Amino acid sequence: MNRQWQLHKRPVGEPSVENFKLVLAETPVNTDQNSVLIRNHLLSLDPYMRWRMDDVKSYAPAVELGEVMVGATVSQVVKSEVAELQEGDFVLAQGGWQDYAVVNRHSVRKINVDRIQPEAYLGVLGSPGFTAYAGLMKIGKPRPGETVVVGAATGPVGSMVGQLACRAGARAVAIAGGPEKCQIALSTFGFSAAIDHRAPDFANQLAAACPEGIDVYFENIGGQVLDAVIPLLNDFARIPVCGVISQYSGFGNAEDETSLNRFMRDVLVKRLNVKGFIVTDFAGIRNEFDAIVGPLVASGEIKRLDDVVEGLESAPEAFIGLLQGKNRGKLIVKLDNFG
Amino acid sequence: MNRQWQLHKRPVGEPSVENFKLVLAETPVNTDQNSVLIRNHLLSLDPYMRWRMDDVKSYAPAVELGEVMVGATVSQVVKSEVAELQEGDFVLAQGGWQDYAVVNRHSVRKINVDRIQPEAYLGVLGSPGFTAYAGLMKIGKPRPGETVVVGAATGPVGSMVGQLACRAGARAVAIAGGPEKCQIALSTFGFSAAIDHRAPDFANQLAAACPEGIDVYFENIGGQVLDAVIPLLNDFARIPVCGVISQYSGFGNAEDETSLNRFMRDVLVKRLNVKGFIVTDFAGIRNEFDAIVGPLVASGEIKRLDDVVEGLESAPEAFIGLLQGKNRGKLIVKLDNFG
Repeated sequence: MNRQWQLHKRPVGEPSVENFKLVLAETPVNTDQNSVLIRNHLLSLDPYMRWRMDDVKSYAPAVELGEVMVGATVSQVVKSEVAELQEGDFVLAQGGWQDYAVVNRHSVRKINVDRIQPEAYLGVLGSPGFTAYAGLMKIGKPRPGETVVVGAATGPVGSMVGQLACRAGARAVAIAGGPEKCQIALSTFGFSAAIDHRAPDFANQLAAACPEGIDVYFENIGGQVLDAVIPLLNDFARIPVCGVISQYSGFGNAEDETSLNRFMRDVLVKRLNVKGFIVTDFAGIRNEFDAIVGPLVASGEIKRLDDVVEGLESAPEAFIGLLQGKNRGKLIVKLDNFG
Repeated sequence: MNRQWQLHKRPVGEPSVENFKLVLAETPVNTDQNSVLIRNHLLSLDPYMRWRMDDVKSYAPAVELGEVMVGATVSQVVKSEVAELQEGDFVLAQGGWQDYAVVNRHSVRKINVDRIQPEAYLGVLGSPGFTAYAGLMKIGKPRPGETVVVGAATGPVGSMVGQLACRAGARAVAIAGGPEKCQIALSTFGFSAAIDHRAPDFANQLAAACPEGIDVYFENIGGQVLDAVIPLLNDFARIPVCGVISQYSGFGNAEDETSLNRFMRDVLVKRLNVKGFIVTDFAGIRNEFDAIVGPLVASGEIKRLDDVVEGLESAPEAFIGLLQGKNRGKLIVKLDNFG
């Protein structure tokens, strides 16, 4: 028989055990050339699963009521008709919250459990570790001497971000819940500082721990932690957004929502790239611009529309009108009849 | 004599003419080897100037009370001790709201007014045009067939964004204030659609004009326009942020502020790069990750911390605890004593 945890009721806010139902099902049989039957040994539990319990559009489909809860597993092949997957092979799979699963053979990855403990494949070498690596190294791009801040710092994503940041020569600052986790962040994972987000003066402590500001904020929490981080961000800071744990139970719940929290969820779900810039940041491509756009303006292929106001004395009134949207094109004050 | 518009009082909310003061000063004299005396002919008025009138930290210093208002100018050299700048040369300068200015010789750029009208150097070929070019081409990166949306679409930034988007093969959708500007956006600048943000059903009209969603939103407005854009953004949309015109008069004014509007100002001022991602987006570097991190985990250089819960029956309770921050490390359910 196959024990399965199914989604029984959709939660409102924080989930409770009533949202799940343990069901005894027949052990599945794989008859398909493309499928393998696996026995799950280790099941990964991750915050994103809360999100899948809601009936909302996300980057992945919701779990339907009566379906088995999803999750990554370290499993062993029980039955396979595929040469490259032999009975007894260890695999990383999406086996779900159950003892056995039939999964597509292309969805599993063989793993070597001789040199590396199987648990590692769900954490540092699994999706959490890879999330940390990709987000920090490809978006955050920490440079030596910079300050990197990450929340849930003893979890598999945060602890990996901290260790990778240190290896890149950056200073890693942990945010975690409670003094025990803060101590672990310092002693086990090598963070330079660790701040308890439950402390009443959390924002002040964070500021004190980041005397040179924050260059990379690896966002996996959102909410009040983000609020405390924002004032400390340095110019040109990078914010890879891989999750908003503090907000997951709030999905589908209008309370305690701010427009920023809602936006950060969109940033995550839609993988938006929001980037501020000032024209002087691009001084290096000024020649490219002149070379490409100059001739187009001279030839009239690029059109322009000027709103010309006569006389320096008109400047304030024209400027006030500009802010009110009264001009149609480029607002210019002509001071004299030159040339 | 030199007429000057000085900042007289700092505005609260929208500025009025009382915030400025016209002063007659002595015409300045340049005695310095590094300075040139210029006569301003054309003065550019731009929304960012509102921001400089406030005494707040920005990407540029505030104008002090009693100082001349800042601004780009097309000017002519009146007196110069520098060989490369001759009397009568036309230059683009930061001449400010005044007839004459003494400016650093390295801060001016000689311009050719034979083939190109001088007005163009304040718009399409000036900072607004370059802002549009840099933000759209280097951050927005429109691809053929994509939808690009920009506000203040008949202004020098928006109209350039629209034209460059069309040249890149994208579909450009204009947002502008009032039917006249919408008409100009269509007929002069080649936008495919133009939506009046003052229309009561603006958000619905925008949605109808973007049937395939929005791939690039060139942000120069903020506020309610941003609110209407967000639900239409496609996965992997890019949002270059060069301004938040709707918010400038609100600076220093707590009313009508949302956390998102405040954040977007930080994105601009600090040139933040906020980027959402899901681990599967980075499938292409999975081998890199395994090659780099795998050996570090095997050797123990990368530490991990597991919270292992025994038995499948414990999964819901463990998961609920995870959301409450009760686990310290990677949460794993061990289903059986395998291996």
